[in-house]
Amino acid sequence: MTKGTINVSVENIFPLIKKFLYSDHEIFLRELISNATDATLKLKHLTNVGEAKVEYGNPKIEVKIDKKGKKLHIIDQGIGMTAEEVEKYINEVAFSGAEEFLDKYKDAAKDSGIIGHFGLGFYSSFMVAEKVEIITKSFKDEPAAHWTCDGSPEFSLEEADKKERGTEVILHIDKDSTEFLEESRIRELLLKYNKFMPIPIKFGTKEINDPDHEPQTIKDKDGKETKEPHRKITVDNIINNPNPAWTKQPTDLKDEDYNNFYRELYPMQFEEPLFHIHLNVDYPFNLTGILYFPRLTNDMQIQKDKIQLYQNQVFITDNVEGIVPEFLTMLRGVIDSPDIPLNVSRSYLQADGAVKKISSYITRKVADKLKSLFKDNREDFEKKWNDIKIVIEYGMLTEDKFFEKSDAFFLYPTVDKKYFTYDELYNKIKANQTDKDDKLIILYASDTQAQHSYIEAAKAKNYEVLLLDSPIVSHLIQKLESSKENVSFVRVDSDHVDNLIKKDDNTISKLDDDQKKSLNELLNEVIPAEKFTVQLEAMDSNAAPFIITQPEFMRRMKEMQQTGGGGMFGMGNMPEMYNLVVNTNHELVSQILNTKTRKKQERLINQSLDLARLSQGLLKGEELTNFVKRSYEMIK
Amino acid sequence: MTKGTINVSVENIFPLIKKFLYSDHEIFLRELISNATDATLKLKHLTNVGEAKVEYGNPKIEVKIDKKGKKLHIIDQGIGMTAEEVEKYINEVAFSGAEEFLDKYKDAAKDSGIIGHFGLGFYSSFMVAEKVEIITKSFKDEPAAHWTCDGSPEFSLEEADKKERGTEVILHIDKDSTEFLEESRIRELLLKYNKFMPIPIKFGTKEINDPDHEPQTIKDKDGKETKEPHRKITVDNIINNPNPAWTKQPTDLKDEDYNNFYRELYPMQFEEPLFHIHLNVDYPFNLTGILYFPRLTNDMQIQKDKIQLYQNQVFITDNVEGIVPEFLTMLRGVIDSPDIPLNVSRSYLQADGAVKKISSYITRKVADKLKSLFKDNREDFEKKWNDIKIVIEYGMLTEDKFFEKSDAFFLYPTVDKKYFTYDELYNKIKANQTDKDDKLIILYASDTQAQHSYIEAAKAKNYEVLLLDSPIVSHLIQKLESSKENVSFVRVDSDHVDNLIKKDDNTISKLDDDQKKSLNELLNEVIPAEKFTVQLEAMDSNAAPFIITQPEFMRRMKEMQQTGGGGMFGMGNMPEMYNLVVNTNHELVSQILNTKTRKKQERLINQSLDLARLSQGLLKGEELTNFVKRSYEMIK
Repeated sequence: MTKGTINVSVENIFPLIKKFLYSDHEIFLRELISNATDATLKLKHLTNVGEAKVEYGNPKIEVKIDKKGKKLHIIDQGIGMTAEEVEKYINEVAFSGAEEFLDKYKDAAKDSGIIGHFGLGFYSSFMVAEKVEIITKSFKDEPAAHWTCDGSPEFSLEEADKKERGTEVILHIDKDSTEFLEESRIRELLLKYNKFMPIPIKFGTKEINDPDHEPQTIKDKDGKETKEPHRKITVDNIINNPNPAWTKQPTDLKDEDYNNFYRELYPMQFEEPLFHIHLNVDYPFNLTGILYFPRLTNDMQIQKDKIQLYQNQVFITDNVEGIVPEFLTMLRGVIDSPDIPLNVSRSYLQADGAVKKISSYITRKVADKLKSLFKDNREDFEKKWNDIKIVIEYGMLTEDKFFEKSDAFFLYPTVDKKYFTYDELYNKIKANQTDKDDKLIILYASDTQAQHSYIEAAKAKNYEVLLLDSPIVSHLIQKLESSKENVSFVRVDSDHVDNLIKKDDNTISKLDDDQKKSLNELLNEVIPAEKFTVQLEAMDSNAAPFIITQPEFMRRMKEMQQTGGGGMFGMGNMPEMYNLVVNTNHELVSQILNTKTRKKQERLINQSLDLARLSQGLLKGEELTNFVKRSYEMIK
Repeated sequence: MTKGTINVSVENIFPLIKKFLYSDHEIFLRELISNATDATLKLKHLTNVGEAKVEYGNPKIEVKIDKKGKKLHIIDQGIGMTAEEVEKYINEVAFSGAEEFLDKYKDAAKDSGIIGHFGLGFYSSFMVAEKVEIITKSFKDEPAAHWTCDGSPEFSLEEADKKERGTEVILHIDKDSTEFLEESRIRELLLKYNKFMPIPIKFGTKEINDPDHEPQTIKDKDGKETKEPHRKITVDNIINNPNPAWTKQPTDLKDEDYNNFYRELYPMQFEEPLFHIHLNVDYPFNLTGILYFPRLTNDMQIQKDKIQLYQNQVFITDNVEGIVPEFLTMLRGVIDSPDIPLNVSRSYLQADGAVKKISSYITRKVADKLKSLFKDNREDFEKKWNDIKIVIEYGMLTEDKFFEKSDAFFLYPTVDKKYFTYDELYNKIKANQTDKDDKLIILYASDTQAQHSYIEAAKAKNYEVLLLDSPIVSHLIQKLESSKENVSFVRVDSDHVDNLIKKDDNTISKLDDDQKKSLNELLNEVIPAEKFTVQLEAMDSNAAPFIITQPEFMRRMKEMQQTGGGGMFGMGNMPEMYNLVVNTNHELVSQILNTKTRKKQERLINQSLDLARLSQGLLKGEELTNFVKRSYEMIK
């Protein structure tokens, strides 16, 4: 038996890194600026603890394009490297400098915000550069070093005459990658990945009004007053905000600051967010961030994936699937955590304990915030309800923990724009809306326009009618019925008003049994049985003569299947089923019965049926055209 | 100045590979089976060219789970390795064996289908295994070798007594990765990545009826005949189809074969595809595949990303964004090409010359196929039109090359279910539908039910009315108008029928100027100006008395903005604008004018207005309820 060591062949690892390490070439700039930030924060830490006897000052990172020379420069004023350190850190790939540093200053590192994750990233420069130079001067009193490498494993290292502390990386951009010599492209990348990094990043200069020079009012020889022009000065163009709102304490921020930060995150978004949730936890995991509730519409898909994920202020992705519970992906904002594993599979992410904890922490924080918003300013919360309900409903359906907490803030709006919590609703309606089997019946409508006549009928009995108009409401109702005791949700058009909440008092019918029998026969001859089931009811004589209803159960199962993930299999494609309720106490119905000719009877029935169908939105196309023509004739 | 070689530190490269090389751990199985396939195809090639003097036979790859021993075995019957080769290929990471092999047998390699891409993949086993063993016997007459490595760079290598040719890889699955010891998980992965790989993959065994034993009919003592039971035999369970349809010649396949392959690709899909397109090109790039047109609905989002991308029969991804033009991502099927670069950024992909060529080749093939389907069987094509039009319309909007070709197969369906090409339509309508300014007016409806009365009015004039009901149709119309000369699309409800196509013949008005003036004043007093613009027209006395129209331009701009990417900024949120066309030649209008009391006039006007609103679907909610109540009163 022989033993040996696996030999990594450098010639072949380089192309490997180039090709596979990052699928996105543009990442190189994020990596180099992360390194530059790292080097600067290291210096800050060493000066703080007294190990570096130099002035920390106000260091910047500069990014410079030399289009003519086809070079891109990234210059920092950080810790720098001696020639010996270059040999150690740069020449030995994957010798993670950050890791060694972190080991040495373990506890301190956390507070100083050092980015320890991207130590290896330097070599990603070879994805876009044919040659890379490093000119670096350590904070220690040693000469500067100049390293050059053309992407083959050979490098050269010599002394340089750089005087200022820090590191300059010069990329000789490859002919395939000239996009990275365009100012607009680099600006785009800096704004994408580095917009909130903790060290100021200079990219070019700009002219501003000199703040130390107040333009004076001058009188000319005619005594006319004019104001001097502003004096212009040229200053560094700092492209990032090194202190984004989420890194601050909530107590230091006002609502306006949160709104300003929202505009910083989404410059193209003109609407203000409805409210924000500041996340801030350091045990058992580290996470900060700000989530915003935007105004939402019913189309859930297009609004997803706006939350940005950062790791120590470096942008990683805007795909937070798996980290944030699905229903919260409709929110906006920022999450920053060093504890979220990157580059792992979704299934791994979902099984990861830390990620699960993060997800349930965020869910809890959102529920708590909703509760306190409701308690602190109910009026405002009610105003926003319509814009936030879809997230809450979706959360109640998909996260049981959230469902449990939702009784404290979930609102039941009525068609008259009153808002009840469940307890309030219960107390309000239990006397009038409990049926003879002691079941509480909650009435609702899904569309105040389309169901107008049914809503009016229910309101005439002093019933409260809720307005539940989200696309997933049938699923939610199903869940609420199974968690609340002895409660049914019933849509106002699912039966005629006396049957919605069945009580013992029966209205007496004007028609005797013989009359009912012949009415029933007549109706069944005229009305197509495949479309409507005729149902005779002795109702209030002022109620409508004909009413079309759609039984709750079938309709709800169909809806659930159509919106996905529920209902009964095969029902989504079943035809709609309607009942035709005929009010035997209405004058018109007696009239139909007493009309002598069959032809006139049929005309009365059909016109009444058309009117009932109009009320339920069922009269369309040719039938509607004919109805309108007939009606013009009648008024003429 | 010093010169040196960059030193890749093995200790750190290993974790790098483990963590970064593949973001999805499950990939390891694809990599190992690719290697096994590779080894088998190499042997096939060597026996073909006479360099290996052994029997190739019918080699298989076997995958075996040893749940108790926490091991996963992948066993092939391929070329095998000598101890020397193990040292060379396995111990030197990134020494791509496949590459060397390909160099040697360059031209032959292409035909033999050797997978040269995943040579490095072996090390991905360490993502899921704490220890990996290789037991391998070369086809050459040398002893077998046994290599063991626990993920540190140290390995051991000794002789083994394996007798059969080929390589067995044994993964000692890590405690974090026990999912890969579950039969269901491994089955899932094999079906995902290896379903169509070219060497049979055995995963367990199954019982089948013995094909060599026909059950006999036996007479028992009472003369009663019974059939023997089938004799069962145990056979290998082959999980893949090594010869998928796309690798065959189109001439060798029938429609049924294509449909069967569709079911193989989408076992959960019960509907048959509408038609298929076989892709097959080897210059200037290599690409094979089959695309299917499924039955589509108007919801474009949910139907995307069903096309599977393969590389030499190895599944890569079902995200073909950038490779296939956007409008074709709604299709289904398979694309197999070694020429599509993997693991590169989207922006790179879009700029890549080869990818651009692939994309335009596919577009052209789809256009050609549509043209031939139309020519070869127009009746069938018309039947399928409604299910495919959304793809075609989207393609016409987004790909100019496709738009140019579309005249040959794009159909204009009428509300009466006739189908015209543009030329046919042009010839059919030019006599009757050219207006006084010599402009061809193409009339259309978007909904036969809602626009029924308007369609009827147009048909009464022998106009053809198209049914254009896709969500993006306003954008398409806009594009057609700018590419065809002197053509306007006009929706049937955008004006009253005499104005849709303006001709010189004016109908004479029954009313004189004074009457018109007083009618106009009356109407403007009764009808709310903010909702309707009153427009008096001398029309046919049989046309409706009141008609509500919505001008084409404003409506279309609004629609375009609402469906995104067009129209005029800010119009999406503007209120709807309607005209009320009053037919001065209708009897009812004269009657209104001649009615004595103002109250009765108003009642006539309002009832007529309500009927006109009903026809345009504008009478809703309380207004509809009141209309229905009033109408019940009127028939009583």
